[in-house]
Amino acid sequence: MQLQFLGTGAGMPSKERNTSALVLKLLEERGTVWLFDCGEATQHQILHTTIRPRKVEKIFITHLHGDHIFGLPGFLSSRSFLGGEDALTLYGPKGLQEWITATLAVSKTHLTYAIKFVEVEEGVIYEDDQFIVRARLLEHVIPCFGYRIEQKPLKGELLIEKARNLGVPKGPLLGKLKNGEDITLEDGRKVFSHEVTASPKKGFTISILGDTKYCEPAKVLSDDADIVVHEATFDHTTEHLAASYGHSTNVEAAKIALESKAKYLVLNHLSSRFLPHDIEVLLNQAKAVFPNSFIAHDLSNYEWKNGELFEEQ
Amino acid sequence: MQLQFLGTGAGMPSKERNTSALVLKLLEERGTVWLFDCGEATQHQILHTTIRPRKVEKIFITHLHGDHIFGLPGFLSSRSFLGGEDALTLYGPKGLQEWITATLAVSKTHLTYAIKFVEVEEGVIYEDDQFIVRARLLEHVIPCFGYRIEQKPLKGELLIEKARNLGVPKGPLLGKLKNGEDITLEDGRKVFSHEVTASPKKGFTISILGDTKYCEPAKVLSDDADIVVHEATFDHTTEHLAASYGHSTNVEAAKIALESKAKYLVLNHLSSRFLPHDIEVLLNQAKAVFPNSFIAHDLSNYEWKNGELFEEQ
Ligand SMILES: [Zn+2]
Ligand SMILES: [Zn+2]
Repeated sequence: MQLQFLGTGAGMPSKERNTSALVLKLLEERGTVWLFDCGEATQHQILHTTIRPRKVEKIFITHLHGDHIFGLPGFLSSRSFLGGEDALTLYGPKGLQEWITATLAVSKTHLTYAIKFVEVEEGVIYEDDQFIVRARLLEHVIPCFGYRIEQKPLKGELLIEKARNLGVPKGPLLGKLKNGEDITLEDGRKVFSHEVTASPKKGFTISILGDTKYCEPAKVLSDDADIVVHEATFDHTTEHLAASYGHSTNVEAAKIALESKAKYLVLNHLSSRFLPHDIEVLLNQAKAVFPNSFIAHDLSNYEWKNGELFEEQ
Repeated sequence: MQLQFLGTGAGMPSKERNTSALVLKLLEERGTVWLFDCGEATQHQILHTTIRPRKVEKIFITHLHGDHIFGLPGFLSSRSFLGGEDALTLYGPKGLQEWITATLAVSKTHLTYAIKFVEVEEGVIYEDDQFIVRARLLEHVIPCFGYRIEQKPLKGELLIEKARNLGVPKGPLLGKLKNGEDITLEDGRKVFSHEVTASPKKGFTISILGDTKYCEPAKVLSDDADIVVHEATFDHTTEHLAASYGHSTNVEAAKIALESKAKYLVLNHLSSRFLPHDIEVLLNQAKAVFPNSFIAHDLSNYEWKNGELFEEQ
């Protein structure tokens, strides 16, 4: 899994930071990419990455503020231009489907693929044999969801040597054992899957939170998570304003990560008031509360490997 | 007057060319800027110019294809963020107002200024003492307007020496003469404005055409114009396709300029199929038909001065 930030600014694009978007690259896991929010010019940012729009399988929208959705019509339309044919599922608050439908209609955009709309409500919004995605309402000035993505435990690998020693022949029986089925050999002996497979590996859990003030649901979504992606629109100098605007400070974000016993924190959605030299200060303030903190830049790419998060340089 | 191209690509953004937008900078003439089309990330392009969104007084949309309008919601919203308070007039085809209104509503965008919507029909769509703007339907796959902007003749400058010699005292009488009024001196003598002002100077005329195949209305709009801005989505290798897609080739655009007896031609809306080294070929093909041709690049700035067009390097 890799996590790449496409836009890490708040409200309006600046030369340094575009409006919100990030991708969860699940290329090894399922050959696809999940996009979270899609501010204007997300497709332009994608031009500077290796991401292929046609690989984007799901888009999760946290809330309907312009800096989180105004890139959607262009992205959807270019995904079509670029030959995308696989259906795409779009998760978002009530109102999104109607707006997208109206926008595609007024611009006479005819997509080469189907969009499945899912109007998000709190709870499990997606589940398959690999992943489970949960949504909770955060506390912003308009309804805004945070998402928790849990990878289910990964089947332990097949211990071939052990299976062969028990007399399992090469061929389909090995596959069955690997997939968790118990089998019976030709001579009548039973071989149990758990005997010849390593124990399952824990999957990763990441919470990707939208705009929010410091709030309880952010902690619930981030409970014991490997990675928390949290906004940091304000800092302590404007702390008194943060909550009334429905936003958080860098330090409040760090508290969420600490209190939810998360492993890593990545801050995004930074105000353009912050200049490049402020960023290190913001980071150190967060680290003082929660040491494993990062601040994302546009196009920052993080790799999740063996239970650790690496920022690629 | 200056003419700056913000996006010169067709259909989809590429690293080299953004989707359609250009500005007519009327800073000396009226202290404002007029924007023509607003593809996604137009506001991002503006960050790389000296243009201030609050100075944008009018936006003219040629047609509702996404590559010409998907930057509007973000631009309008950032103009507000950046403290724009002056009303803005938005000219465009039927359907534009409804979409903008729905988009601002769904995203809970509250603007700090008023938008006046004008649903464009053929004919004069704007006139004041400086300018007259006319629209005509071109021939594209959906309704698409071209615009002709005529600057009215500029009052000739006051010949102060001459006025003083006729006995006009310093002060408000000089202003009246300059403004075209005739006056009577204290001793009863009349002084006529035309005696003490140079003859009026011709204003400029520019036609800014949207997506279109080679068509008669493009010529009507460009008749005797100083500058024609024409699309060139195709070239001769795909000439047979151009018309059926509602587009033109570089050479067809040059023919329009030639046949309408225009002075300069600037080509835009180039397909991303064309590579940088193709551009010179395209330009030379246009020049073979109409020598005063340019091909615009993103951020190309042209200055209109003493009846000539200069491309700033
Ligand atoms: Zn927001
Ligand atoms: Zn078009």
